Formats: sequence, structure tokens, C-alpha cells
Amino acid sequence: MPGTDTAQIPGTRHTSRRGLLFGSAAAAVTAAAGFAAGSMPADAAEPTEALHGTDTVAFHGHRQPGITTPAPAFASFLALDLIQEPGASTAARRDVLARVLKILSDDAARLMSGRGVLADTQPEMATNPARLTITVGLGQSAVQILDPARVPGWLKDLPAFSIDKLEKAWGQSEVLVQLCSDDQITLHHGRRALEKDLRTLATTVWIQNGFRHSRGSMPEGTTMRNLFGQKDGTANPVEGMLEQAVFGGAGLESWAEGGTSLVLRRIEMDLETWDEVDRPARDFSLGRRQSDGAPLSGQHEFDSPDLRARDDSGFPVISADSHVSRSLAREAHEKILRRGYNYVDGSRAGLIFAAYQADVDRQFVPIQQRLDEADLLNEWTTPIGSAVYAILPGCREGSFLGRELFPD
Amino acid sequence: MPGTDTAQIPGTRHTSRRGLLFGSAAAAVTAAAGFAAGSMPADAAEPTEALHGTDTVAFHGHRQPGITTPAPAFASFLALDLIQEPGASTAARRDVLARVLKILSDDAARLMSGRGVLADTQPEMATNPARLTITVGLGQSAVQILDPARVPGWLKDLPAFSIDKLEKAWGQSEVLVQLCSDDQITLHHGRRALEKDLRTLATTVWIQNGFRHSRGSMPEGTTMRNLFGQKDGTANPVEGMLEQAVFGGAGLESWAEGGTSLVLRRIEMDLETWDEVDRPARDFSLGRRQSDGAPLSGQHEFDSPDLRARDDSGFPVISADSHVSRSLAREAHEKILRRGYNYVDGSRAGLIFAAYQADVDRQFVPIQQRLDEADLLNEWTTPIGSAVYAILPGCREGSFLGRELFPD
Repeated sequence: MPGTDTAQIPGTRHTSRRGLLFGSAAAAVTAAAGFAAGSMPADAAEPTEALHGTDTVAFHGHRQPGITTPAPAFASFLALDLIQEPGASTAARRDVLARVLKILSDDAARLMSGRGVLADTQPEMATNPARLTITVGLGQSAVQILDPARVPGWLKDLPAFSIDKLEKAWGQSEVLVQLCSDDQITLHHGRRALEKDLRTLATTVWIQNGFRHSRGSMPEGTTMRNLFGQKDGTANPVEGMLEQAVFGGAGLESWAEGGTSLVLRRIEMDLETWDEVDRPARDFSLGRRQSDGAPLSGQHEFDSPDLRARDDSGFPVISADSHVSRSLAREAHEKILRRGYNYVDGSRAGLIFAAYQADVDRQFVPIQQRLDEADLLNEWTTPIGSAVYAILPGCREGSFLGRELFPD
Repeated sequence: MPGTDTAQIPGTRHTSRRGLLFGSAAAAVTAAAGFAAGSMPADAAEPTEALHGTDTVAFHGHRQPGITTPAPAFASFLALDLIQEPGASTAARRDVLARVLKILSDDAARLMSGRGVLADTQPEMATNPARLTITVGLGQSAVQILDPARVPGWLKDLPAFSIDKLEKAWGQSEVLVQLCSDDQITLHHGRRALEKDLRTLATTVWIQNGFRHSRGSMPEGTTMRNLFGQKDGTANPVEGMLEQAVFGGAGLESWAEGGTSLVLRRIEMDLETWDEVDRPARDFSLGRRQSDGAPLSGQHEFDSPDLRARDDSGFPVISADSHVSRSLAREAHEKILRRGYNYVDGSRAGLIFAAYQADVDRQFVPIQQRLDEADLLNEWTTPIGSAVYAILPGCREGSFLGRELFPD
């Protein structure tokens, strides 16, 4: 039904869902030139300036935004737990969850289109959406409230990995909201607006803020660098494989039509000891050149790594224990969509590893098990947070996220 | 000597100092199209895309960059103390300071032109400078090391204000480095590179990270909004007054030719209680409309506030206790250049108030004293950090910051 796959935002061009999924960056957002021009001093505007603050992504659609849409420069992951009376009935708990999802859906549609939420005390901070996306996921206990029959088998704590040093502060929550935007002021306002509107229904468990390269500083689609200086995300599924990897298809099933899963791990990176590693050892550990991201067996970033390549002495060009070698999808169906963000938190730093895939057990877990067994990079990286969420299907205008998944 | 006021960066256009000071945003940076193109995937580039990551600001010049140059989207303020043996001689202390200033000058010139520092382990993270500026200031004890005769009278702790609740964690340091860039990855790499290179000479006292609207999301020159939703910085000196306000002139003297001062205060803002304030009370407390920043006596943001204006009942239109009324420069020479950044730090948030002026005592202090006596906004704001720095004059190629201020 193409009619439900487009969103109409007053004053903007329509954004087709197909454009969001497979189109170029230019097609992925709706540029609403002059959208908020009334709040800007006319004399400061240069006619030739192409401003991206008014770019919007459609909220309504078959799938939620913020998954296969291009990753904006900043993300704020907001983990929430529902406020529930001890011993509350299933019906009462379901009611709280429904209210949370209704509020989130209404607020997301408003904020993503550049409007404040209802009774917003600072709606001016919403007028520069800059590709704001708001994406909602549920932990196991929340899907159980929604409908125990719908809990997918993979929606549980990940297997215990030997490399993990998980801190309780970054653990599982009942609800997860991923906010992304190219503007930090917008992002902060949006997150606070959601927290305020949910205040009587949910408490904040943690917030993880991350960054990539700024919008417009590099060509759209440039692979971001993590804080080790490495290109991060090169091996993401290409357009033809993205749909299946994230939303299911031949051999992979999504937990709900239009839904997917998110594995969110906080991976601390020891920048101090990594600084002591020289360039050859860095490249050897990764299996790629830090300089341009090319696999050691190839010439260009997007060349496929050749794990069988041997050097003149007969040694593997890409070490069997390198990160590339261990993380490379062994089966086509293993491919996951990495959409991570760098974080700096006082003297600690690392990567907010965010991966979307149709089935956590069939895609993420086998890769992570190989990395756990052996990955040269493990010497400098430590997973300190871990959570798994079922990402809800998108919703149509007039509805709310998760509506069709409630029983009756 | 105009020849010393321009920097020549290989592959870039020249940037004139005059352009940096008084020009439009377009003149303030050097757009080096294709500068780092070799590291970008060609197929991701769209020919029409105007990328700002390769924009550079000149380091060398009569004055330091990062003061009157347009404020980039992100700032990181790095406070350092010199490592000194107890009882070290003045000559030994001076040697440490000279080494710090030489390293900072060399590193700043490299990083600001898009190159890594010497022995940079991640030079790829420097290739997207995005208007990176690095600006260096000294606290009282450091200027005393440099030359006791050059310590300006205002280079000391600010008077104690009744509204202050200063936390030791955000106090005075011996050296201050302000880094600004439109890209967070660049900014983080640059700050770490400086910390590493200075490791044997200086320790980090604190780091304050802040943000404004993203580059290109709004017209260049749009006044930023703080986390209360207010336009912040509207009353900054206009072009014709900027030079005198910051670097001295008739009636104001700078501590060193080409030097200035920085007052850096961390002002916590209580977003929770501010949320309870309705729109009329917000506008009344500020003396401006939150919506567009216009003074309550005027129509447009940049209209001069008329403190004598009365309404039909004879009451002042702008309350005598409003923030605008108290902070408005009483004398032309009081004008200061505010160049602040928003911060969010866990559950705390506020403004990194950064003000440049030729003379702290004659410009900043009288304004702050009036705000201390009465400012309706004080109910929701609390200064929790405070430091004062002498900002060094700029340096020429082949020299280093502060060189001409050392004795002999």
C-alpha cells in the first residue's frame, strides 16, 4: 500500500519510504527550505547557503525511521523502565505500556517534523530538526506485557562472553528510545521533552550520547572513524542485502512484520594503550589499513577481504585472529547493520555499538562468539554494557507504535 | 606588516587577518575543496555537495584565532597545570612553560591546517579540521613565571559573588587551551593529541565540552539558543566595536599588544524548575521574548533594549531586575564578547560562559556585580566554576606563543 508509505508534512515535500530505504542521502530527507525561516534573522542568511537544519525524516511508515536511514551526526540512546505498582495486574501494566507508546509516537511525529511536543516550554529548540529520528524498542519484559506470545526467542540477555566486563549502569531496560540528529541542541531538547512527557510512566535508566563526523564535513556515506582512528562500518550490508539482513527474508524471519532487533553494546576502548601500538601492528590486528580502511588483501576500502590470500612467505595476508577475519560474515545471512557512535565520557571513551538485524541469534551471536574466542583487538576493547531490544514496526498516521501487537 | 598576517597552507587559499576579524563567515575560513579528497570514497561524493570539513582557520597572525573568528559548533576547554618539582627555580619553571608553549604552538599550527601532530598515531583523524581553532591562555601563576612585571591587575580570582557556589573541580588552572571545531571527532583527536604531547610537562585539571547549533543547520551568524531556549549572545559588540572591546583602544588597554582576557565560568542551569515557568514569566525575567530574542521594548532581536519604555499603566516594559536590564552595558567600554557553549553532563546542564574582553575589571566585573545584586534569572542559574586567563598575543610562523613576553 504505497499510500501508507509516504508521510505528508505540511510545507514539505513528500518523502517516499522507498527513498528512505534505498535512495541516496539526498532522497532520504525532505529539505524544507525556509521551513523555520521566520525564526532566523533575514540579514544573516546568505542566499547561496544550503541549510540542512530543516531536513526532516518521515516518522510514519511501514517501518520506523533511524534504522536504514543514513546515520546523522549525533545519537542519544535513552533507556527507560516502566513505573508500575508492585503486583499490578497484566491489564494495568499493559495500560502503562500503551500510554508510553502513544506518547512516544505522538511526540516523535511532532519533533521529527520540527514542532515542539504538546505544552513544550521551548518549542523554538525543535524548529531545527536536522534529520531528527526517534526509534523505539522494547526489552523482553515489555514485549511480555504487550503479548507473551510475541516474545521472540532471541529477546533475552546475550550469552555470557569471556571478554565482557559488564557494568550494571549500562544494562538492559524495558524500553529504549534512539534519537539521532545532526544538531545537538535539537537532540538534547527532544530527549528531554520525551523524558518529561513520560515522567509519570517511566524512569530513565541510562542515557548514552555519541557522535560521528558532522553533517556536511565529509561526503555523505563516508565511513566514520572510531576513536582508534579506524574506519568503522565498512562491511555493512550493501543496498541489495540490507532489506533481508535487517527486516528478514529468505532464511531469516523478523519477529514482527516491519520490525527488527537492536543489539546495543557499550564497548570501552583503551586509547592510552592503543597509542603505544605502531602502525603495522594496528593494521595487522584489524586486518585493514587504518589509513584508508582497505583490507590488507586489497587496495580499496570496499574490496572484499580475501582470507585465503598469502604473502610471498606463505603466511596469511590477513591474520586469522584479526578483527576482520573473525567478524566477517561466514554465511550471507549473518550480515548485520552496524550503526554505531563514538562516545567520550570523562576519561573513558569508546564505541556505542548499535547493530540492527532480523534475528539476533542467527546473525549477531555467531559473529560475537567468534570475536569472543579470538580477536586481536580484544586486548584494547572491553564490552561494559549490553542490551537487546525488539524494534517495533512503524506506525501509520492516527495509530501508535506497537498498536497491532497488543492482543485483541 | 600584512605579510605576517596571512598564513599559507599548501593547497589552500590565503586567509587574511582582516577577513578573520571583520569579514563574513565566508571570508573567515579557507575552503580547501578536495583537500582530503584522497581519503574519501569517490562514489559517495555528490558533485554539488559543499563540504565544510576542509575549512581551515589560520593559526599564525598578530592575534590568536578562536576569539573573534566565528564560533564553531563545538568547543573543548582544556585546563592544565604545569608539572614542576617542589622548590624549582624560576629559570626551571620558565623552561617548562616555554616548552609547553612551543609544543602547543607547533601542534596548533599542524592540527588547524588538517595535519596530525608529530608522531601522531591517528593523523587520519586530523584531516577534517572543520574550522578547528586552538587558543591558549595563562593563569596568574603562569604569567608570573613568564614575567612578573607583565601580570595584569585583573589576572586574579574574580570578586566573590553571592550567587556563586563554586566547585573546586572547575577552578583556576595555570594554562587554558580552548579548542573549537565543527566536527567532534576532530575536536576529540586534537585535544588528546595536545594532552599526550604535554604529558611530561602538564597535567589535565579539567575538561569542559560544549555545543552550539551545527554548522550549516542554520544561517551562519544566527544567535545560538541556550538550554533555557533563550537566544544567547544577542548583545555582543557589533563589528565596529569588537576590536576595542576585545583588544583595547580608546579608554581600554590590553595587557599585551594583541592579547586579551578570557573569563570562563560554568553556569549550571536548573532545567527542571525552569520548565515550570510560563512564557510571560520567562520573557519578563529575561527582558526579551524567548520566541525571537527581541527586547520587550522592541520588535526585532537586534533592536536596542529601551530601559525607559513604559506600558500603558506606567510600568517599565523591561523590568529593572530582568537579566537584560542588569547585564546591559552601562558604558560603551563595558561591552564584552560572549562566546559561550551549552553543556550537558549527566543530569546536570548549563552554559560554559566564555567572555573575551580587553580588561576584566573594567568590563566583565561591573556587569557581573549588577547581575549578582539582582537578576531575576538567578533563581534558575548557579555559577559552579570560575577562572580567568590572560590570552596570549598571536605568533608568527617560526615563533611560538608568548615568546616576546619572556624576559631577555
